[in-house]
Amino acid sequence: MLVHPQYLSGESTIMSAMNAFYAQSGGVTAVINATACGVIETARKHSNKIANVYAGRNGIIGALTEDMIDTNKESAATIAALMHTPGGAFGSARYKLKGIDENRVEYERLIEVFKAHDIGYFFYNGGNDSMDTAHKVSQISKSMGFPVTCLGVPKTVDNDLPVTDNCPGFGSVAKYVAVSTQEAAMDVLSMAKTSTKVFILEVMGRHAGWIAAAGGLAGKNPEDAPHIILFPEIPFRKRDFLKRVRECVVKYDYCVIVVSEGAAFASGKFLADQGTRDAFGHAQLGGVAPVVAQMVRDNLGFKYHYAIADYLQRSARHIASDVDVKQAYAVGKAAVQFALQGKTAVMPVIKRVSDKPYRWKIESAALGRIANKEKMLPRRYITKDGFGITEAARRYLQPLIKGENYPPYFNGLPKVAKLRNRSVKPKLGTKFVV
Amino acid sequence: MLVHPQYLSGESTIMSAMNAFYAQSGGVTAVINATACGVIETARKHSNKIANVYAGRNGIIGALTEDMIDTNKESAATIAALMHTPGGAFGSARYKLKGIDENRVEYERLIEVFKAHDIGYFFYNGGNDSMDTAHKVSQISKSMGFPVTCLGVPKTVDNDLPVTDNCPGFGSVAKYVAVSTQEAAMDVLSMAKTSTKVFILEVMGRHAGWIAAAGGLAGKNPEDAPHIILFPEIPFRKRDFLKRVRECVVKYDYCVIVVSEGAAFASGKFLADQGTRDAFGHAQLGGVAPVVAQMVRDNLGFKYHYAIADYLQRSARHIASDVDVKQAYAVGKAAVQFALQGKTAVMPVIKRVSDKPYRWKIESAALGRIANKEKMLPRRYITKDGFGITEAARRYLQPLIKGENYPPYFNGLPKVAKLRNRSVKPKLGTKFVV
Repeated sequence: MLVHPQYLSGESTIMSAMNAFYAQSGGVTAVINATACGVIETARKHSNKIANVYAGRNGIIGALTEDMIDTNKESAATIAALMHTPGGAFGSARYKLKGIDENRVEYERLIEVFKAHDIGYFFYNGGNDSMDTAHKVSQISKSMGFPVTCLGVPKTVDNDLPVTDNCPGFGSVAKYVAVSTQEAAMDVLSMAKTSTKVFILEVMGRHAGWIAAAGGLAGKNPEDAPHIILFPEIPFRKRDFLKRVRECVVKYDYCVIVVSEGAAFASGKFLADQGTRDAFGHAQLGGVAPVVAQMVRDNLGFKYHYAIADYLQRSARHIASDVDVKQAYAVGKAAVQFALQGKTAVMPVIKRVSDKPYRWKIESAALGRIANKEKMLPRRYITKDGFGITEAARRYLQPLIKGENYPPYFNGLPKVAKLRNRSVKPKLGTKFVV
Repeated sequence: MLVHPQYLSGESTIMSAMNAFYAQSGGVTAVINATACGVIETARKHSNKIANVYAGRNGIIGALTEDMIDTNKESAATIAALMHTPGGAFGSARYKLKGIDENRVEYERLIEVFKAHDIGYFFYNGGNDSMDTAHKVSQISKSMGFPVTCLGVPKTVDNDLPVTDNCPGFGSVAKYVAVSTQEAAMDVLSMAKTSTKVFILEVMGRHAGWIAAAGGLAGKNPEDAPHIILFPEIPFRKRDFLKRVRECVVKYDYCVIVVSEGAAFASGKFLADQGTRDAFGHAQLGGVAPVVAQMVRDNLGFKYHYAIADYLQRSARHIASDVDVKQAYAVGKAAVQFALQGKTAVMPVIKRVSDKPYRWKIESAALGRIANKEKMLPRRYITKDGFGITEAARRYLQPLIKGENYPPYFNGLPKVAKLRNRSVKPKLGTKFVV
C-alpha cells in the first residue's frame, strides 16, 4: 500500500516511497541541467522516500501525454555529467497551462497521471509562469484528494523572478555577455583607426535589462567599452543616442554598444519593429542591432559591425559562471530537501548574505509570492543618463559571473551527457492531446 | 658604426645590433598577440643582434607616420600576457600599400623611416596582402641600398594562405564556431517540440568556407547538428535548400544551419544582398542569416532564430584552441629565428607531419609563393550534396581545434595585457599623410 507523504505521521509504519516528477519549462539555460542533476542526485540519496524521479519529455507536455522519462535508467556518471551539459536534457516546452476555469481538464489530467504513477512530488523548473502552474497544481491536487508536494525550482536567464536575489541561468549568460563585450571591444579598438568604429552587440531581455546590464561589467571607466547600453527600461531617444555615439568616437576612437532586444521608444514601440518590408512586401525580419546600426550609418556615417548573440548566449556552457553552476545545483538539491521536510508550494530562493566576499544561502519562499511577478532592473542600477550601470549594479552583478566552471573536452569539443531517456511505461492508455 | 645584418660576414668584428619593426595587419584574431609575444620574446633572447622591437602603432601606418611603439618599455610579464590577450595589442590597420609604380613614395618613406631608426628587420603579421607588401619591401629596400630582412608572419581567421597547412587565428575561430554550434543545437533541440525548429548561425568567410566548415565538427551523424552548411564555394539553390530544411525538421524535429557570410547564388550575387529598402529608401542592411531565416519562414513556416557571431568569433580568446595559440607563438618565434639565420622574403609555414596523433612543425616558404594567392576550401572537403563536410575535411579540421588554452581570470573576466605603448621618439620630423 502506498501512503502519500503528506499523510505520513511519525508513527506510521505502513509506507512506501512515492515517485517524483521533474519537468523543465520555458527557454533553457546553460545550467538548467545542473539543477536537474541536483534534483536527481538528492532524490537518489533518499530512495526510501523518493523511489524514482520521472522527467517530463518536453516538460509538462510529458506529464499531460503520459510521456515520461525514467531517470533511474541513467547511470550515476550520466546524471553527474548533466552538470556540464547545456540545453534541456529531457526537453523543455513553451507551454503554459491555462487558468483553472478555462481548462480544468488539463489540471485534472495531470493529477490523473500523477496518481497512476504514484507521483507524490512535483518539481517544476522554470520561470514566472511555471511557478504559477506549480502553485495551482498544489492547490488542485489537494482539492482532488491526491495532494502532491509541489516545488518550484527557479530558472531563467532573464533574472526576473522576485524574492530570490538572482535566478540560476542568469549568471552564465551575464558572464558570456560581459566576456564577449570585453573581447569584441578589444578587437574593434585595435582596428578603429582604419576600420569599424561602432560595434553593436544585441542581447536577450525583452522586458528587463538584466542581461544588457551585465555587458556593463566589461568596463569601468568612461573610456572603457561598453560606452552605451540600451535598456528596455529607458525610453530610447535617438538624438541623445547619436550624440553620445559621436562623442565616444571623437573621444575614444570607437564606440561599443550593448543593446537589449527589448529596447523601445517612449511610445513602447520596440526599436526592432521598424515596419520595413522586403521585395515581396513581407515584414522585414531582424533584430534591434541592425536598426541601431542603420541609424549610426545614416546619421553619422561611421563604419559599424554588429553581432546578435541569440541562443549562443544562453547555451554557452563553455563559459558558464561557477557561481551560477553551483547555485543551479543548489536550488535543485534544496527543492528535494524542502519536499522531504514536508514543505509544499514553495520555491528555493537564493539569499545574498554579503557582497564582498560574496556569500549566499538557500531559503524557501511561498510560490504565491513569486508566481506571475516580474522583477525589473531597478532605476538605481542605471546611470542618470540612462546609458550605463551604477556602482550599485556592479556590486549586485559582479559576484554572479565569478569563477569559471569548464566542461571536460574531447577532441576539442565539450563533452555532454548522453542520456538514454527511456520511457516510463504508460498506465492510463488514454490519449491526451495538447 | 652600425652594420646591416645582411652585410655581416662571419669574420666581421665591427657590428652592432639593429632594431626590428613589427606590425599587425588586417583583421585581428584571438591569437595574433601570441605571435607578437613570440616575436618579441625571441628577439629579446638575441639582443646582441636585435636591439629592440618597435611595433607599428596601427600597423604599417605607424611606420609610414613614424609613430612606433617601443616594446622594450614593456616588462617581460606584460609581453608574456600577450599570449592570452585578444585584439591587436599595438593596433592593426586595413591599409594596403599600393603597387610600386602607383605609389613608390610610400615604399621609399618606409625605408626612410627604417633607416632613421636603424631598422634592419621587418616582421609583417598578416594575410595575403601583407605578404605581398613584405615581399615588395624586401625588394625595394635592396634596390635602395638599405636591404631590410623581411619576414611575413601568417595570421588570418580566413585560413586562406597557401603553402602553410593552416593559418594562426583560424583554429580558434573554428573552435568557437564548432563549440557554439554544438551548444546552440542542444538548446534548440530541447525546445523544438513547442518552439524554434530552425536555427541559423552566420559565420565569417566572404570568399572561403573554412570557418563554416568548422561548424561541421559539432556533429558527425546525419541527425547531428549542423544539418546544413552553406559554403561560399557551393552555389546556393533555394529549392534544394528548403527541401533539406523540411526533411530535417520532419526527421530530426529541428534543423541547424551554419551559413557563411559569403554564401552566394550561382550568379555570384551574395545571399545577403537582397536589394531590400527601408522606409527611407535606403538599402536594407543585414547579414545573410536573416535572409535565410526569411526564406524558411515564407516557404516553410517554421519558427526560427538566428545568431550572427561577427567579431565575437574572431576575438573569443576565452575559447581559443590550444593548438592555435601554440602555433601563433611558434610562427612569431620562427620568424625571428629565420631572420637571424639570414633568411629574408620568407614566411614561416605550418607543416603537418601527421593527423593522428596530430604533429606539426615550422618550415619557411618564399613570400613569392604566398603573396596574393588564396587557398579555397577544396571540393573534396564538401559532401556531394554540398551541405556538409567530408571525412577528409574532419581529418584536416579536427586537430586544429584541439585543446583548451584558457586565459587567467579576475573577478569573472579574462585578464589581458595592459601595455604602456610608449612612443619611439621620431627622428625625421617630416610629416607623412596616409
